[in-house]
Amino acid sequence: MAQLQAADWVGIPAGHPFGLATLPYGVFSTADQQTQPRIGVAVGDKILDLTAATARLLPGRAHLFGEGTLNPFLAAGDGAWAQVRADLVTWLSGDTYRVAVEDLLVPAASATMHLPFAVADYVDFYASQHHASNVSQIFRPDGGGALAPSWLHQPTAYHGRAGTVIVSGTPVRRPYGQSRPEGADGPEFGPTSRLDFEAELGFVVGVPSQLGEAVAASRFHEYVFGVCLVNDWSARDLQAWETTPLGPFLGKSFGTTVSAWVVPLAALQHAIDYEVRINGHVVSRPPYATMHWSPAQMLAHLTANGAALRTGDLFASGTVSGPERGQRGSLIELSWNGSSPIELADGTSRAWLHDNDEVLITATARGADGERIGLGEAHGQVIPAQSPL
Amino acid sequence: MAQLQAADWVGIPAGHPFGLATLPYGVFSTADQQTQPRIGVAVGDKILDLTAATARLLPGRAHLFGEGTLNPFLAAGDGAWAQVRADLVTWLSGDTYRVAVEDLLVPAASATMHLPFAVADYVDFYASQHHASNVSQIFRPDGGGALAPSWLHQPTAYHGRAGTVIVSGTPVRRPYGQSRPEGADGPEFGPTSRLDFEAELGFVVGVPSQLGEAVAASRFHEYVFGVCLVNDWSARDLQAWETTPLGPFLGKSFGTTVSAWVVPLAALQHAIDYEVRINGHVVSRPPYATMHWSPAQMLAHLTANGAALRTGDLFASGTVSGPERGQRGSLIELSWNGSSPIELADGTSRAWLHDNDEVLITATARGADGERIGLGEAHGQVIPAQSPL
Repeated sequence: MAQLQAADWVGIPAGHPFGLATLPYGVFSTADQQTQPRIGVAVGDKILDLTAATARLLPGRAHLFGEGTLNPFLAAGDGAWAQVRADLVTWLSGDTYRVAVEDLLVPAASATMHLPFAVADYVDFYASQHHASNVSQIFRPDGGGALAPSWLHQPTAYHGRAGTVIVSGTPVRRPYGQSRPEGADGPEFGPTSRLDFEAELGFVVGVPSQLGEAVAASRFHEYVFGVCLVNDWSARDLQAWETTPLGPFLGKSFGTTVSAWVVPLAALQHAIDYEVRINGHVVSRPPYATMHWSPAQMLAHLTANGAALRTGDLFASGTVSGPERGQRGSLIELSWNGSSPIELADGTSRAWLHDNDEVLITATARGADGERIGLGEAHGQVIPAQSPL
Repeated sequence: MAQLQAADWVGIPAGHPFGLATLPYGVFSTADQQTQPRIGVAVGDKILDLTAATARLLPGRAHLFGEGTLNPFLAAGDGAWAQVRADLVTWLSGDTYRVAVEDLLVPAASATMHLPFAVADYVDFYASQHHASNVSQIFRPDGGGALAPSWLHQPTAYHGRAGTVIVSGTPVRRPYGQSRPEGADGPEFGPTSRLDFEAELGFVVGVPSQLGEAVAASRFHEYVFGVCLVNDWSARDLQAWETTPLGPFLGKSFGTTVSAWVVPLAALQHAIDYEVRINGHVVSRPPYATMHWSPAQMLAHLTANGAALRTGDLFASGTVSGPERGQRGSLIELSWNGSSPIELADGTSRAWLHDNDEVLITATARGADGERIGLGEAHGQVIPAQSPL
C-alpha cells in the first residue's frame, strides 16, 4: 500500500507526525466560537473541525461528535471507528471534498485543547520489567532487586484517581502530604521534596463490557480505541510512607497528565519511541518495545475477575523504561532515588523536579509505510505548593 | 425539638426506620411507567415520587430531579439539601399538601431500585483499628499484629473501581483469578475459594472541589451529602497474591454493593449499629462508633494533596469491626482466615462464602429524638463462577 498522501490544499508539511497515517482525535475550542468544545482531528499544524464537517456532510452521524467529548464516538465501536477514519482519508486526500471541508481547518495554534474524553476508571499497570526491577533494587536492595512473587505471572496494577486526569498543558501543583524523613521515627507534613514524572502509554477503552464477563486478549481491538501519552506524576516521599499495605494513594492522585490527542490503534503497528524533556533538555528516550506485558494482556487481566469496562476507561502501561540508563522513564530511576542527580544541558542538575520545571513527554511510532506517526505530547509545569492548613 | 411526626395519611408504621427523621433518597422505576427512573424518597413502606412532586409543586426546582440520578441534587449544595428536606417534612407532616402528593406515594414493593448516583471516583479507607489489627495478626503473626508504620498517623486508603459499584440486590458472580495455594511455589488460575464480604459505611460527595486545593475537615458538611451502606466484596486469595506491591486490585474490583437509599447527613447525629446476616442468620453486629478515623479526617486526607472532589465521589470507611468477635465486619476476621469457621443457626458453617449465599448488611442509627433512623440494606447473592477461558 502506498503511503497515504494528503492533498496539497490541506497543507501538511512533509514528514509531519500528524499526517494522514495518524489522524488523532481531540476536543478543542477557539476564542471566536462560543459554542461548546468540538471534536477535532489533527492534520499537520491544523485541526479539522470534525463536529462541523460531520454535521455538514453526514448529518446522520452528527450525534457521535456533538457532545464536546470523544465518548459517544468511542462507544460506537470498531465499525464506526474504521468508517470515520476512511471518510477522513477520502475528504483530505483528493480535491472532491475541498470545498466542503477546507474552511473547517483551524490553525492548531489558535485552539485551546480540552480533556479528550471523560475518564471513567483509571487503572495504572506496571508492565516494564526494567522499571519494576529498578524500583525493587532502589527500595529493597537487600533482596537483590527481586520482583514481587506475582510480577512475572500476571500484570500488576492498581486503580488511580480518574477525577484528577488532566489534559496536557495543565499546571501541576506540588502536593502536600505526610512523609518520613530518612532516619526519623515519625512523619512530617509538608510539600513533597521528591516530585517525579513517569512516562507511560495510556489505552483508551471505547466499547463497554458486561459485569461478570471477562474480555479475552484476542478481542483487544474490539474494545480499545486508541492510545494517549500519560505522565503519572508521583510524589515519591508521600508514596513511600503510605504505600504499605494498600498501595499508592496521595503520592499519585494529585494529577495525571494525558496528551490532548488520542491516536487510534489503526495508526499504530510498530514500536513507539519516547522522549522526555525537562525544560527543553532531553533526559530520557524510553523505547515502548521493551515492555514485558502487552496491552492485550493488561486488558484480559483487568477483566479476568469479571470487572466491567466502561467507555472512557483509561488504563496505562506504567513507567516505560528500557534497559539502558538513558532509557529510564522516571527520575527515581534516572537519579537512582536521588543519589545520582542527572545533569541538564543548561548546567543544572536534578535529583527531583523543581518548582517551575516543565516536563514534556513526546513519542512517535513508525507507520506501516515508514511514515512518522505522532503521539502528540504530555506537557506540564510544576507550580509551587500551596499550604492546605 | 419534638419528634417529627408524619400525617396519618402517609401511612408510616410506628417505629419504622424510614420515618420523617430519615427521609433517604434513591432512584426507582415502576413497571407501569416507561419513563426514565425517577428520584424517590422512602417513607415507611412507600416511596414518594420526588421527581413528579417537584414538577407539580416547585417546577423551578425540577432540574434537580429530572435526570434519573441523584447527581444534580448532590451538586446543588447544602442550602438546597436543607430546603428540599424542609419541604418534604412540610408536605408529609400535615394535611395541607395531602391532595398534592398522596397520589405520588408508590408502594416500595412495586418499585425497582437503581444505583442512586453515578459514582465518580471510589476510594476505600481502612479506618477501623480493630479490623486493621485483626488483619495484621492474620497475615503477619510474627509481627504481633503491628499496624503499618503510617496507620496511626494518617487514614490509609486506596482507589477502587467505580464502574463496578452496584446497587443492593444485584447478584455477585464469584470471580476468577490467580492465587497461590498454601505451600505451592506458583499460582493457579481459578474461581476464588475465599470469597468474603466487608461491612462498611460509604460517604457520598455532593459538592466538587478545585484541583490543587485541600478541603479542611471542618468543611465536611459542605461537601458530603450523606451515607450509604457498602459491601466491599473481597476475594482474599486473589488479594493476597496480588497485593504486593501496589495494593488490592482484582481481589476487590469485581463488585461493590451499595444500598439503594442515600441517607442525608442531616438525619445522622448518633452512632450507627450494623447487622450482617448470611442466609438470614446474624453473623456480626459491628458498631460504627468504634472506628478510629472520622469521615471528616478521611475527607481532609483524601484532598490534602490537592486531589479534586467530584459530585458522586464515594469514599467508604473500610470494614467496620468492633473489639468483640461478634462485632467483626468480615469473614476473614470472623473465621480467622478460615481456621475457625463460624456456625450458622441452620447448622451449617462458613469459613468463606458459598455459592448462592445471600449476604445482607443492615444498619440503624438513633435519631436526635430517639427515633430509629434506617440506613436501608446492602444485599447480594453469590452466583457461581463462570470461566473466562
